[in-house]
Amino acid sequence: MKKIIKNGIIVTMNAAGDVWDHGYVMFEDTKILAAGPEEDLEKKLQEFTAQGILKPGETFEEIDAKRAIVIPGLVNTHCHLGMIPFRGLGDDCKDRLRVFLLPMENQAMDAEMASLSTRYAIGELLLSGVTTVLDMYYFEEAVAKVMDEMGIRGIAGETVMEKDSCDSKNADEAIERGIALIEAYKDHPRVSGAITPHGTTTCRPETLKRAYEEDVKAGTVFTLHVAEMDYEMTQLREQYGMTPIEFMEHIGVLGPNTLTAHSIRTTEHDVEILAKHGASVAHCIASNTKAAKGVAPVSLMHKHGISVGFGTDGPASGNTLDLFIQMRMCENFHKNELRDRSAFPAKEVVSMATIEGARALGLGDITGSIEPEKQADLVLVETDSPNMFPVYDPYSALVYSAIASNVRDVYVAGECLVKEKKLVREDFAKIRNDLREKMEQTAFKDMKNLV
Amino acid sequence: MKKIIKNGIIVTMNAAGDVWDHGYVMFEDTKILAAGPEEDLEKKLQEFTAQGILKPGETFEEIDAKRAIVIPGLVNTHCHLGMIPFRGLGDDCKDRLRVFLLPMENQAMDAEMASLSTRYAIGELLLSGVTTVLDMYYFEEAVAKVMDEMGIRGIAGETVMEKDSCDSKNADEAIERGIALIEAYKDHPRVSGAITPHGTTTCRPETLKRAYEEDVKAGTVFTLHVAEMDYEMTQLREQYGMTPIEFMEHIGVLGPNTLTAHSIRTTEHDVEILAKHGASVAHCIASNTKAAKGVAPVSLMHKHGISVGFGTDGPASGNTLDLFIQMRMCENFHKNELRDRSAFPAKEVVSMATIEGARALGLGDITGSIEPEKQADLVLVETDSPNMFPVYDPYSALVYSAIASNVRDVYVAGECLVKEKKLVREDFAKIRNDLREKMEQTAFKDMKNLV
Repeated sequence: MKKIIKNGIIVTMNAAGDVWDHGYVMFEDTKILAAGPEEDLEKKLQEFTAQGILKPGETFEEIDAKRAIVIPGLVNTHCHLGMIPFRGLGDDCKDRLRVFLLPMENQAMDAEMASLSTRYAIGELLLSGVTTVLDMYYFEEAVAKVMDEMGIRGIAGETVMEKDSCDSKNADEAIERGIALIEAYKDHPRVSGAITPHGTTTCRPETLKRAYEEDVKAGTVFTLHVAEMDYEMTQLREQYGMTPIEFMEHIGVLGPNTLTAHSIRTTEHDVEILAKHGASVAHCIASNTKAAKGVAPVSLMHKHGISVGFGTDGPASGNTLDLFIQMRMCENFHKNELRDRSAFPAKEVVSMATIEGARALGLGDITGSIEPEKQADLVLVETDSPNMFPVYDPYSALVYSAIASNVRDVYVAGECLVKEKKLVREDFAKIRNDLREKMEQTAFKDMKNLV
Repeated sequence: MKKIIKNGIIVTMNAAGDVWDHGYVMFEDTKILAAGPEEDLEKKLQEFTAQGILKPGETFEEIDAKRAIVIPGLVNTHCHLGMIPFRGLGDDCKDRLRVFLLPMENQAMDAEMASLSTRYAIGELLLSGVTTVLDMYYFEEAVAKVMDEMGIRGIAGETVMEKDSCDSKNADEAIERGIALIEAYKDHPRVSGAITPHGTTTCRPETLKRAYEEDVKAGTVFTLHVAEMDYEMTQLREQYGMTPIEFMEHIGVLGPNTLTAHSIRTTEHDVEILAKHGASVAHCIASNTKAAKGVAPVSLMHKHGISVGFGTDGPASGNTLDLFIQMRMCENFHKNELRDRSAFPAKEVVSMATIEGARALGLGDITGSIEPEKQADLVLVETDSPNMFPVYDPYSALVYSAIASNVRDVYVAGECLVKEKKLVREDFAKIRNDLREKMEQTAFKDMKNLV
């Protein structure tokens, strides 16, 4: 049955930048059929009848948006879904990675934990309006299965490191897992696999090249942590006299499939290289600044035409999995860095959270905007809550006023997964209890920060 | 009837830094009687019975916190409650002040608009856990009346400018209004008045001095915009060869009653001056950085023992009136500025949002911490929502994970004003409709940013 959303403020993020203060979106099965101002709906219906798309007397399911802002589903281009148990652990600790994260990952992370955490994280993502996520972590067979079951659009990236990890003895084993994952999901309508090396120095160049070639062959995204860590910058400078991005070009792993995550410490020359190869960037502003690592030069990247999407990073680093916080932080940090209050107009930041993120994942023809033929990945952001009044400009309201809890309804591939701020398919209390029970069987049970 | 909150994580913000993972808070009428770990409750009740505080057989109202984090009410030390109609207007406009704000204030701001906007803003504040607010705007008789009616703790500061404003012909008239306001509320248990000059250059030194003397005489806060604007810095440098804070010392308006708002462009010498006079600072991080104005040196201020509270600034500048966003922004900006991920541990930032804010307003003996004899200004932040799990450390959860919508219940002076995320005394839908109807009778009706 065809569905029509009415009585909403439609923010399309299409190339024309169409926004209709009273608009409609029509969709059927997984796809958007049409969108426009409500006053043009009658004409569109007649046109569809003439074309045989609409049968005489055919009825619709009408969805009243109740003056919500209707946006394309948000795209999270860099996340570690398995890390919910780490959220809030060692937040203000100088060497949190070695004190908390790595030991606990060794002790307590297995396929079941990764799966339960992923289920939790995807629930949280959907409830905050994220309809597409790229994950890179371990046990990605389990992650992909949960993505499939929960209805989100996702890329499950198997992390590759040279040394042993919680799911693979070495890089070769991880790459084999990744290849099998890509194969297993190659015909899935929403979920796909990828091989995602950990970083520029935690894999050998041969490993990076092999992963890149496999990802390109499969037509999926090749993503890794780039220009993020002090040790990474030092090591590549000492060993090759290069920045991480120069090094990636040198070994031949830059191209349109490449998505560099973080990329905080990028020079103008680095940005030119990325642009030349058509690579994209996952901007993790909230995680990066919480970790005191600096602000990636996104304004420069945009000037060179690079697609920059948002990444929340994992819940261990960014705490929230919520793109509204990313949008707000992006505005404040970049305006402040540039000492220009008119920099990054709200529309540019909404674009990063939607269509640019989709492009960064190679899904720009599938999701990220409200246009005919695209997937019906739609989010209704209510304007009833106190923080959402008045709305002079929906972009502004989305970026400066909205918080995650304003997300009311979420559709992925035409299916309603969140209704009235609740998951439709799943019972979140059960998801949480299952994860908590599993954590209580491990060393997470006794972890505390300060109190 | 005495009330006891049980089954909560109690974050006291007292001098000892007590946190009880399973604690209780007992209060009666407006005041806290006791707080402690639940295992000590029986002993405390026996002690109270022996002292006659508890009568034999006396019953309590028991409040189940359901594992919420129970914190002192949040304190917003700088706000312009009358400006809800301006929220989102001209957000990315270079000269928003002259293009949007000043003309609309002249055209459409009157006592009724200020009153309706204040009612809306206080509803929004309470729902996000703010129990104490300092306002500085116009028509403050109306503002104080709404503070009284809605149950919030508040200081209504009448803005003083040399030139005419929407409520006064000149500074003298505004000061007279302020004096009358102070007098009218001098015996009110929650609401007080203040004379709040606009800024260091928009008032003559004589006006600043007179306002300061009146505020000190009344024992209320003397607050104004300081070291915020380019023109302010330039004018005082050219005219006096001084920074705004040096100028304030020079004319004799610094003391324990002084609260400098923003104070972004403060030198180390300025900070020493503020500390010497026992002045406090209202840190408006989200507003300041959105306006690309920079980051106040709070770490230096703390080193000198200055009380720094948070201010959201008005909804025209900061958009949200929500201290959770301030806390999160404060962490990210200051950690990043200092290139130290361990800077500003979460507890320090919760302290700014509570006890430091209370001290900055001269209310440090009344609110800002959970201790016997203090007012029962209490906020229950639920830990059921997806973003609030796990909680290894309540400070960390409050600062890095929580958003405004996690606030479930709010008490001011012992009275429950928010229950299950809804206002108890008021119907928010009516508050909103009343404001909207009023706006529709003015030029606000036709305002748009971009679309």
